[in-house]
Amino acid sequence: MPGNSIGQIFRLTTFGESHGAGIGGVVDGCPAGLRIDLDAVQQELDRRRPGSTALGTTRNEADKVEFLSGLMDGVTLGTPIAFLLRNTDARSTDYDALKDVYRPGHADKTWHEKYGIRDHRGGGRSSARETAARVVGGAIARQLLAQDGVEVSAYVSQVGSERTNKPYTDLDLASVWNNDVRTADQEAVSRMTALIEQVRAEGDSIGGRITCVVQEVPAGLGEPVFDKLHADLGKAMLSINAVKGFAIGNGFDSIDLRGSQNNDAMTPTGNRTNRSGGIQGGISNGEDIVFDIAFKPVSTIAKAQDTVDRSGKAVVLEAQGRHDPCVVPRAVPIVEAMTCLVLADHLLRQRTVRAGHDRPISP
Amino acid sequence: MPGNSIGQIFRLTTFGESHGAGIGGVVDGCPAGLRIDLDAVQQELDRRRPGSTALGTTRNEADKVEFLSGLMDGVTLGTPIAFLLRNTDARSTDYDALKDVYRPGHADKTWHEKYGIRDHRGGGRSSARETAARVVGGAIARQLLAQDGVEVSAYVSQVGSERTNKPYTDLDLASVWNNDVRTADQEAVSRMTALIEQVRAEGDSIGGRITCVVQEVPAGLGEPVFDKLHADLGKAMLSINAVKGFAIGNGFDSIDLRGSQNNDAMTPTGNRTNRSGGIQGGISNGEDIVFDIAFKPVSTIAKAQDTVDRSGKAVVLEAQGRHDPCVVPRAVPIVEAMTCLVLADHLLRQRTVRAGHDRPISP
Amino acid sequence: MPGNSIGQIFRLTTFGESHGAGIGGVVDGCPAGLRIDLDAVQQELDRRRPGSTALGTTRNEADKVEFLSGLMDGVTLGTPIAFLLRNTDARSTDYDALKDVYRPGHADKTWHEKYGIRDHRGGGRSSARETAARVVGGAIARQLLAQDGVEVSAYVSQVGSERTNKPYTDLDLASVWNNDVRTADQEAVSRMTALIEQVRAEGDSIGGRITCVVQEVPAGLGEPVFDKLHADLGKAMLSINAVKGFAIGNGFDSIDLRGSQNNDAMTPTGNRTNRSGGIQGGISNGEDIVFDIAFKPVSTIAKAQDTVDRSGKAVVLEAQGRHDPCVVPRAVPIVEAMTCLVLADHLLRQRTVRAGHDRPISP
Amino acid sequence: MPGNSIGQIFRLTTFGESHGAGIGGVVDGCPAGLRIDLDAVQQELDRRRPGSTALGTTRNEADKVEFLSGLMDGVTLGTPIAFLLRNTDARSTDYDALKDVYRPGHADKTWHEKYGIRDHRGGGRSSARETAARVVGGAIARQLLAQDGVEVSAYVSQVGSERTNKPYTDLDLASVWNNDVRTADQEAVSRMTALIEQVRAEGDSIGGRITCVVQEVPAGLGEPVFDKLHADLGKAMLSINAVKGFAIGNGFDSIDLRGSQNNDAMTPTGNRTNRSGGIQGGISNGEDIVFDIAFKPVSTIAKAQDTVDRSGKAVVLEAQGRHDPCVVPRAVPIVEAMTCLVLADHLLRQRTVRAGHDRPISP
Repeated sequence: MPGNSIGQIFRLTTFGESHGAGIGGVVDGCPAGLRIDLDAVQQELDRRRPGSTALGTTRNEADKVEFLSGLMDGVTLGTPIAFLLRNTDARSTDYDALKDVYRPGHADKTWHEKYGIRDHRGGGRSSARETAARVVGGAIARQLLAQDGVEVSAYVSQVGSERTNKPYTDLDLASVWNNDVRTADQEAVSRMTALIEQVRAEGDSIGGRITCVVQEVPAGLGEPVFDKLHADLGKAMLSINAVKGFAIGNGFDSIDLRGSQNNDAMTPTGNRTNRSGGIQGGISNGEDIVFDIAFKPVSTIAKAQDTVDRSGKAVVLEAQGRHDPCVVPRAVPIVEAMTCLVLADHLLRQRTVRAGHDRPISP
Repeated sequence: MPGNSIGQIFRLTTFGESHGAGIGGVVDGCPAGLRIDLDAVQQELDRRRPGSTALGTTRNEADKVEFLSGLMDGVTLGTPIAFLLRNTDARSTDYDALKDVYRPGHADKTWHEKYGIRDHRGGGRSSARETAARVVGGAIARQLLAQDGVEVSAYVSQVGSERTNKPYTDLDLASVWNNDVRTADQEAVSRMTALIEQVRAEGDSIGGRITCVVQEVPAGLGEPVFDKLHADLGKAMLSINAVKGFAIGNGFDSIDLRGSQNNDAMTPTGNRTNRSGGIQGGISNGEDIVFDIAFKPVSTIAKAQDTVDRSGKAVVLEAQGRHDPCVVPRAVPIVEAMTCLVLADHLLRQRTVRAGHDRPISP
Repeated sequence: MPGNSIGQIFRLTTFGESHGAGIGGVVDGCPAGLRIDLDAVQQELDRRRPGSTALGTTRNEADKVEFLSGLMDGVTLGTPIAFLLRNTDARSTDYDALKDVYRPGHADKTWHEKYGIRDHRGGGRSSARETAARVVGGAIARQLLAQDGVEVSAYVSQVGSERTNKPYTDLDLASVWNNDVRTADQEAVSRMTALIEQVRAEGDSIGGRITCVVQEVPAGLGEPVFDKLHADLGKAMLSINAVKGFAIGNGFDSIDLRGSQNNDAMTPTGNRTNRSGGIQGGISNGEDIVFDIAFKPVSTIAKAQDTVDRSGKAVVLEAQGRHDPCVVPRAVPIVEAMTCLVLADHLLRQRTVRAGHDRPISP
Repeated sequence: MPGNSIGQIFRLTTFGESHGAGIGGVVDGCPAGLRIDLDAVQQELDRRRPGSTALGTTRNEADKVEFLSGLMDGVTLGTPIAFLLRNTDARSTDYDALKDVYRPGHADKTWHEKYGIRDHRGGGRSSARETAARVVGGAIARQLLAQDGVEVSAYVSQVGSERTNKPYTDLDLASVWNNDVRTADQEAVSRMTALIEQVRAEGDSIGGRITCVVQEVPAGLGEPVFDKLHADLGKAMLSINAVKGFAIGNGFDSIDLRGSQNNDAMTPTGNRTNRSGGIQGGISNGEDIVFDIAFKPVSTIAKAQDTVDRSGKAVVLEAQGRHDPCVVPRAVPIVEAMTCLVLADHLLRQRTVRAGHDRPISP
């Protein structure tokens, strides 16, 4: 059973290796009659691409998306929307030395153990470059969600030991694109920037946290008992390269609370608090959906590391290519994209849940 | 798209409401020719059932499983294995008062918003009673995994502020069933027990953490890019009632590490550390798989709480029924079951990944 | 990948062996808020059960359905609807002689070759008894379809060489239950009956054809390019025991027509003809959907037959049990059930096809 | 739930409109380590393309396939294999007159009714051009099947009233590519050719039948109860444009046989006959799989036809473009491709059916 598709109704399948002909995907199940703002799609891609932030890699990938099907005059036909990003800045020979060496923290060895073969150039399909296709799919999903006013915003809430000190409700979520850290907490920008620059100078990397907020989401989304909304969100986030943890609402902090402290009291004008993160029993309750994602430090570093080669012999891996010292600034659009994909799918699934005289959804 | 099934090849579908005729499920895709130890299945159910630990609810549910199909003389036929647990200790009238009241922290209101109708008796299908069916499915999956020597063990690693102080490698994982807390850290038993008893006396509840360890798992399991092994494990865990967070390996603790600190150095005799938690790039690497799950405090408490009724009017919810002050002791077998289900599915999926002359798997 | 489920949104999973504890199923994805007429479900079962027609087997199976979940006060909850038919008239010892003998025309040998194990009692899961679960699932689907006025009617249009001479438009489709042949052509009843009785007296069996008509179906159902409506109908029909062929509209008769003869001319008041059978390009066009299904003669006969046993040795199989001389009379409700299942699924799928502001489907 | 994918494990998703940027697809789930003969893939495409037979359309489409991912040095990586065929000979303006006219026998009107929008240029996605992507996917599947010696061969067995007079066992199936009719019966070539030429001269079209034979297929393929092998084959065939009927083995001819005539007697050296068409109870029995497919006459004809426009007004549709007088010659590779796709999927599914110690499939 292949694992390159996500979503039951609004379904994205991605394809492509880092140094093959290109990266792309197919969105099947996007409803017909939706006008797509193609510039907005490209803008989201631009926010993810290497070179988009001064704090990331110095590689520069144009990542120009070409749509191959499913659209006529910019409007969805209800047929599969295929798209392609040609690979251009692919210095495959950079990777010749890695052909038989397994990099620590990477999928090199496991990929070999699974498939018996792997494309070693730039990480092949295990490269984060694959996420470019997710951003395209997510950008289409976002435009579907926009019909219902749903807004998805993510921001960097932690870099190493540097955290935001404010809840998201005190932040201007739109301000995230005004700084290279991609945080919504302007007060934290300089602290986080300094840490990333320091780590880069050390030839090392550092982890981070992204917080994602979904606003104006209708109540009723999520499919118990297994496809609970936060379960599908969690899976989507954990499928992003370098993600090590997911927490909905107050997450691990809820462990040390009493029920009387943790329950969100309900009132005629809404819940008094939102510790649950906008989801109860796996179903959205109409409050903001809020969750956190933990990213490990990037595995590729400039320091020498002990490892093994394909024959099992010990080798020392020396400094490598041009990579990000911290992944979270460029991961913000990926987190948003995966969130949009999950929500679009559940929005459409919810259409099938109630009996009643069937009639066309208004065009 | 219904959400009551999990797994692509080894697939469990559960059914049933807390106070309907029964709870049950169908395991489809379990390979033929597997001898099932039915007593072992019942034993796992007994570990989950209310009344199984002195620290849980005083409700006592027999939870006797009846197999309806898929087995002949205790051996799987390759056909769907259906099973049923009749509901017996169902005091539905206990819940009459809750028919039009939404309990804080529960799925009462969201269920209504989703379906336009709900079974209010004992939480209906949102009741944790549904997890009994998962335990049965997981027990079958465990016996499939045992053919390859895979072992799945979970234990309570935290109750409120009380944590285990040792890594799992210093614990006897089999000792978990020797104490009512279901922890493998014998030193922590009394601390955790005291806290749960104190919380119960207060009429309150408390959260907890479970750590799960998978040993002797073959390398190569997991299906990039979306069905990564830890992504599917994360979804499975987040689908369990009251779960708020999931972390693979060192999870959120990896945020504040440098790459040079976090990477698991590889050596000819294995990895020097296991911060990744046994999974690289979404594929098992043959090391132990280790992950943590955060459970919130049980929402049902004996204290009065502000809430609303179905008409939106403010009401005060008074003390309720017979519930657990802390969910984690009884959640240990559920965590193990969900883990077994995910691994069994991926074990079978891995059979399809490599080209080569097809031949029957040895019976 | 297990094969015991059908449908993407409205999905039926069946379970059970002929001589195990029972036969049953789970309908997942049935919308919430649908009042189910349970007597109507039982009535459809009664039409399929052995003993329901004088032209069938003399076995008499009560086939009383018990619902286990998904309903409250007869209304669907949106949760899985599980049901069970206990096996009662199971004379397993009748089949002891067949334990190691492969019956010609049956799945005995292939089942063994596939699974390495089989339940030989009454055919195990390959028994047509499994279709009882389909009838229950189909009866629920029919009640969902009824909300939109869709009507599904099947009838026997051929038994051996005896055919109906009239198009369905000249027949009273409701009259099918007034005769034991289950044909809507009253003129053909005696001819068909005589042939079946003759074949029974000979200790032999005979094939037949069922025609199915769907009326008042909305235009727009069917999901190109692979899940075309007639492709899904064809698969559903071909999954019924003993079915050997499927034809939509004029089917194989279209081969020897010119395009100018075969095309249905379109007019402002509808199509002039309906040779296409109500489906164009895999999508319903609002005309009646009409298709034919070919059933082979029942493989179980009273005559001696050459065959082999499990060791590969030649044996002669003598007269067996109590079976139908012709399967089509009792297959009529099965054909209707499978048709209802496919249409209900596609009706719900169509809800997701168009963009637009999402709003609840009216309850 | 989108309908543009087929297969559970070996899964093809196609995309593209007739006059958009291109036609293509993604094969997910093709096992790793399979060397693909790319020339053989192109050869199959060449057999389907317009212009490949003198009896088809005079349009000439190069249909050069470009692989975008999933291969390294011609060997499968186990990752999605995406491919693209750019549209070149697309005279979209030919279709301007058809923008608001519904062609009889085509999907123009139903497409509109379903999606509320359609691409009228060349039939958009309902064009048979989409089947080019199926041929590519099928060609890959065929090479997987070849590892186990499975051979798939189809041929034209009827054009209008002209039929082959011999069973396939008396024909040289490889001879199909030696004539423009694509029949394996050399005696029938001239009769069939003459009929097609006559029909073309009349400005009309004619239907046909294709017979498909699978040889050297292992016993045990097929997944009861719904995904029976012939049910999945039937669905795959019925999803091909212009197909109106499917019959396995002796199909509709079995209706008028007695069970004693129809059953295939089993002997120690194999079955005495193969009326079942190589499948018993939905599972392959190791004999040749044989089935027939009915194609209606092409709907596009040069004669004037009554129809309606989008506003519902009566119009007369005059002669159109460059089309095939009979579809079956060019449909032979499509039938083979769909057959290969279904068999490859079931071959991989069968790997998961039996319990036993898991070990890698030999590379």
